Amino acid sequence: MYHVDVFRIACRGPGDTSGLAELLDSGRLEPQHIVAVMGKTEGNGCVNDYTREYATAMLAAFLAARLDTTAADVERRIAFVMSGGTEGVLSPHITVFARRPAAGPAPTGKRLTIGIAFTRDFLPEEVGRHAQIVETAAAVRRAMTDGGIDSVDDLHFVQVKCPLLTAAKIAAARGRGAEPVTTDTYESMGYSRGASALGVALATGELPSSVPDDAAVLQDWALASSVASASAGIELDHNVVIAMGMSAQSSSPLMISHEVMADAIDAAAVRRTLESLGVHGPGDMRRVVNVFAKAEASPDGLVRGQRHTMLGDSDINATRHARAVTGAVIASVVGHGMVYVSGGAEHQGPAGGGPVAVIAQAS
Amino acid sequence: MYHVDVFRIACRGPGDTSGLAELLDSGRLEPQHIVAVMGKTEGNGCVNDYTREYATAMLAAFLAARLDTTAADVERRIAFVMSGGTEGVLSPHITVFARRPAAGPAPTGKRLTIGIAFTRDFLPEEVGRHAQIVETAAAVRRAMTDGGIDSVDDLHFVQVKCPLLTAAKIAAARGRGAEPVTTDTYESMGYSRGASALGVALATGELPSSVPDDAAVLQDWALASSVASASAGIELDHNVVIAMGMSAQSSSPLMISHEVMADAIDAAAVRRTLESLGVHGPGDMRRVVNVFAKAEASPDGLVRGQRHTMLGDSDINATRHARAVTGAVIASVVGHGMVYVSGGAEHQGPAGGGPVAVIAQAS
Amino acid sequence: MYHVDVFRIACRGPGDTSGLAELLDSGRLEPQHIVAVMGKTEGNGCVNDYTREYATAMLAAFLAARLDTTAADVERRIAFVMSGGTEGVLSPHITVFARRPAAGPAPTGKRLTIGIAFTRDFLPEEVGRHAQIVETAAAVRRAMTDGGIDSVDDLHFVQVKCPLLTAAKIAAARGRGAEPVTTDTYESMGYSRGASALGVALATGELPSSVPDDAAVLQDWALASSVASASAGIELDHNVVIAMGMSAQSSSPLMISHEVMADAIDAAAVRRTLESLGVHGPGDMRRVVNVFAKAEASPDGLVRGQRHTMLGDSDINATRHARAVTGAVIASVVGHGMVYVSGGAEHQGPAGGGPVAVIAQAS
Amino acid sequence: MYHVDVFRIACRGPGDTSGLAELLDSGRLEPQHIVAVMGKTEGNGCVNDYTREYATAMLAAFLAARLDTTAADVERRIAFVMSGGTEGVLSPHITVFARRPAAGPAPTGKRLTIGIAFTRDFLPEEVGRHAQIVETAAAVRRAMTDGGIDSVDDLHFVQVKCPLLTAAKIAAARGRGAEPVTTDTYESMGYSRGASALGVALATGELPSSVPDDAAVLQDWALASSVASASAGIELDHNVVIAMGMSAQSSSPLMISHEVMADAIDAAAVRRTLESLGVHGPGDMRRVVNVFAKAEASPDGLVRGQRHTMLGDSDINATRHARAVTGAVIASVVGHGMVYVSGGAEHQGPAGGGPVAVIAQAS
Repeated sequence: MYHVDVFRIACRGPGDTSGLAELLDSGRLEPQHIVAVMGKTEGNGCVNDYTREYATAMLAAFLAARLDTTAADVERRIAFVMSGGTEGVLSPHITVFARRPAAGPAPTGKRLTIGIAFTRDFLPEEVGRHAQIVETAAAVRRAMTDGGIDSVDDLHFVQVKCPLLTAAKIAAARGRGAEPVTTDTYESMGYSRGASALGVALATGELPSSVPDDAAVLQDWALASSVASASAGIELDHNVVIAMGMSAQSSSPLMISHEVMADAIDAAAVRRTLESLGVHGPGDMRRVVNVFAKAEASPDGLVRGQRHTMLGDSDINATRHARAVTGAVIASVVGHGMVYVSGGAEHQGPAGGGPVAVIAQAS
Repeated sequence: MYHVDVFRIACRGPGDTSGLAELLDSGRLEPQHIVAVMGKTEGNGCVNDYTREYATAMLAAFLAARLDTTAADVERRIAFVMSGGTEGVLSPHITVFARRPAAGPAPTGKRLTIGIAFTRDFLPEEVGRHAQIVETAAAVRRAMTDGGIDSVDDLHFVQVKCPLLTAAKIAAARGRGAEPVTTDTYESMGYSRGASALGVALATGELPSSVPDDAAVLQDWALASSVASASAGIELDHNVVIAMGMSAQSSSPLMISHEVMADAIDAAAVRRTLESLGVHGPGDMRRVVNVFAKAEASPDGLVRGQRHTMLGDSDINATRHARAVTGAVIASVVGHGMVYVSGGAEHQGPAGGGPVAVIAQAS
Repeated sequence: MYHVDVFRIACRGPGDTSGLAELLDSGRLEPQHIVAVMGKTEGNGCVNDYTREYATAMLAAFLAARLDTTAADVERRIAFVMSGGTEGVLSPHITVFARRPAAGPAPTGKRLTIGIAFTRDFLPEEVGRHAQIVETAAAVRRAMTDGGIDSVDDLHFVQVKCPLLTAAKIAAARGRGAEPVTTDTYESMGYSRGASALGVALATGELPSSVPDDAAVLQDWALASSVASASAGIELDHNVVIAMGMSAQSSSPLMISHEVMADAIDAAAVRRTLESLGVHGPGDMRRVVNVFAKAEASPDGLVRGQRHTMLGDSDINATRHARAVTGAVIASVVGHGMVYVSGGAEHQGPAGGGPVAVIAQAS
Repeated sequence: MYHVDVFRIACRGPGDTSGLAELLDSGRLEPQHIVAVMGKTEGNGCVNDYTREYATAMLAAFLAARLDTTAADVERRIAFVMSGGTEGVLSPHITVFARRPAAGPAPTGKRLTIGIAFTRDFLPEEVGRHAQIVETAAAVRRAMTDGGIDSVDDLHFVQVKCPLLTAAKIAAARGRGAEPVTTDTYESMGYSRGASALGVALATGELPSSVPDDAAVLQDWALASSVASASAGIELDHNVVIAMGMSAQSSSPLMISHEVMADAIDAAAVRRTLESLGVHGPGDMRRVVNVFAKAEASPDGLVRGQRHTMLGDSDINATRHARAVTGAVIASVVGHGMVYVSGGAEHQGPAGGGPVAVIAQAS
């Protein structure tokens, strides 16, 4: 039996660990029980967003001191997923996931659980291609096992942090005679997210039986996972996988549910997810611990039949627009913007839409 | 008795007049009845957004040919208000307001009407100060008279287009020994919008009896109008005022109502406005002609108690973030993003919020 | 015998035609002699830069009135090439090229001449590929003939304006089952410029004998033209070609010369070009009519061995950085920033560098 | 007698300390001799640039381990000045200044020396005003004493790192009834730099005898220092001052000299500075350790009489444009972009220009 807990903590800046320090000092959380940290940091969320690695470095150094070990060891034990970009009303914060053995009788029914896994490092030319797909799928299965999630029916959100290509990585690959999937660094983020999401879909059985061809990545939008959420970052070379689901082995006071937003403004899907957890109106919103969603500018250039201008905007990248939109829609439902909305939903839900999950206290 | 009609037309680009041409060719609208055109164009909505003047120039040239007159004459007859910035799901379009004498019996009760007026040109040093406030107030009164709006109770939305300061205008003022209110061109947009909104508030009686001091502009947020909407642009030196309201002299099939959004994510205010016009659910949305709203990043740095990062973002101006947010929230309610959301709501509704108005077919 | 003249005119905004009006009113230029107009406009120079089409529309409308014809006819007669982006010290302006029959004895030796040509419209899937290469090459040959440039040795600068892909064009192609070269709109600008430059190189004999494969575009940087300058824009579907060179048939008071900048900071190449025209120091700079250059962020991520960050900057596109750099370097040599520097030098000179040409009065 | 040494180290990212580690491991530098570190980091250089504090945090943590002390202690001993923004060809790097007692005979004549000092923390309402001016002046005098700079004639570059205002700081001040100099966070950077530069000018005697009024800050451009260089950052509340000059007490192998760039493209001033140190051509450039310069968009909107568009660009802040320009000009002279160019030269040299200093090995 496991006890799983989740804490959402506001951040005053990407390097701010004071909220986590207060939580640990309060005795409500022991550092050795932390399994994963997912954060929204206030950089541009694109290629040259160093707030993600800055936040990770500061959290790892802080926890290393608390755990009397090294930052490198902390990064091996705990899955850190920092997603850049708090456009619009999105509010910088971290979500800390903790898991510990629990005694006593289990609650009736399944409760929230979490498991993590890591892939090996990818070569630059593997990003966005077959190797990233199959290695991610394997990591998803390991993360499910780690979390005690017995069935894909109990899997509600799979967060993947994946690498992107930099000019240096591209040059290194070409120096070895290998051609990366793209030479555009911003575009590489989409390929990496897309292949990672196809890996999740492969693990969950949402794909036809075989592994998709490389050519399907960012092309065949019919291939998708309804629970995948992938964020690319400059700060890693491998994939980090966090599986969230429900388990009879968990005695957590929390539950999780998910739906698929059909497009970036699908407030109804957010409401349905809340209602499936018994959260019915403004008075119940305090039971919500966090909302997790993916956002993207629909690739056909239309939202509900009207032209949008996100894909042709050379001043603001489309992922930034998309986060602002979906963040605002979710905030208008749950009452504030301290939610996790990540940009770039390639093969994560339908084209232009994406998964949304809610963790809430059981009623 | 007047007949007032309103047409919303999608644009394929800032210079696209083909939709208006089709409407005129269909015979549903005569060019000589056009009173005002309000548009959302796809520039950055800030200082160097030339899509506003480009759209105005193309519309004026197009209508000049149809009306057998000059573009300059068209701009004297018709109020053009182009608001830049279609961030997120906002979709570029124009709203064309037409008014013509009508025969026959009036409908029961008041219906939509529109009136316009222009101020004199402002000197650079008058922007954001007393002259702009009082001249705008006088123009609002003239626009009400023009539209047959008898009482401020019948006034639901006052759109003002106002100038901004450029480096050249600032230099010209200083060359004459006059000091403009600011030397930051982006900031001048806020001053111009703020003084214009205070002018509306002065005309509507929403202020204490006296004209506000210059020092109140962008300082005393308690001074505000619940019906003002101001957009600054590089393409003019005077204020253009469009007053929308209800009148017993109108036989329009349309009605207008408004509410105040308390903050940028106040979806409930949008719903209340729709309901006051009898628009109760998705099936009724086809009766909505357009929604008009103002958006801003709350100046205290918080939305419902959570920190936002819009004001410290040196890559994307805060007005761009704010339009993305409020545009997405309204789109999630009315079902698409082809709505008019303009950024920078200084003295237009409460700090961080702004007016929202809906024009819909009478049920 | 032709008389060719070139006028550089400052612009106060992208819609400003007042300088051209003054020039025509002065009698120094007759509108019917205008052959081409090249401009630097102050948009972002990327996909959603509407200042290019705005400037072209206003110039065509203005000249239509002066020539008593339609704007469409003006655009058929005159080659308009607007290049967006005046980053740093670059100063918005237009360069007007005029050509007329001349009587009397020719000057000794060759003088500046200019010729223009247009390709057919390209399908979206032809952009960046074989058709654009070969059609451009044919147009270069027609433009040389038009200008009386007998040999490629006399050809010093070939300006091409070429289309880019928009979301709408991409969707249209795919609707017909055709796959465009890229689905990234910003990236399509590079493909279009690259194929156009290879077309110039094909015409000038700078390539191995055969037409390059599609796969060589943006890949084989050894293929390049030392006189090509290509700018992509949203406002056209075909290529416009302006050939500048020297001809014994010209009685122009002007001369042209060119060199290749090895990288974006190669001030020495600028100085060599000036010196080849007898412009030796600050006192001679008044003889310079304009400088034309291409700029790009070197694709290997290094400038003279040091890392640059232009390619990974998700806030400012690399072409904007590159224009700021080369514009500043040229301005530091010629003494001001009212020069023509265009971004994106794919296959235009060596990787990271580009051609530079100077038009100056004969000494 | 002091030995002063300066090392320029390339950075692969804002958190990269590997180059410094290699230098220390080589034995060429002892960590306890480090006095100051000045860096160019690859953020936007504006308000929300966290690469500055990230770089400082990583360097301080790294040196803390080497010095067996805490990061906080390292920040008290060593002056860290990180300047954000490597636009164009500017290349991220740090410059490490070391000072140690030296034995043996002094070289003939004066050599490079360095001194540092810190002010107290400033209240938000003190930024850009009198307190910041006078405290900075006092710190400059202490830094001169610290470095053994006997006369302002021997002072060649005074680098100041100063705070900026954030939304939180502004709210805090107003909560106490104090009004900060501006409520625009980006604009506060200019005020802070301006007051700091006036503090330098006060210390050097470049001002009329009295302390300038608050009203002179960002207004009276006649007041300026020819050796001041100020960078604002989010990561501190006080001013850090680094004085560089020449001293008979130094046995450094290095020398420093400076000139004033009259505008952003004044390559001649860069050349004069080099020549004053005996650096006469490309072959001598290897003797240059680093170049330090300030850049700004001229506030009158003109560079050498031609209009620039930097001040009205709402997509890219003017300081970013200016760094790209001056960085490119200096790179075109010294042959690469790994130089220190910082944006925003208010009261640092003439309006539109700024100081430039070179450190080079004595010939």
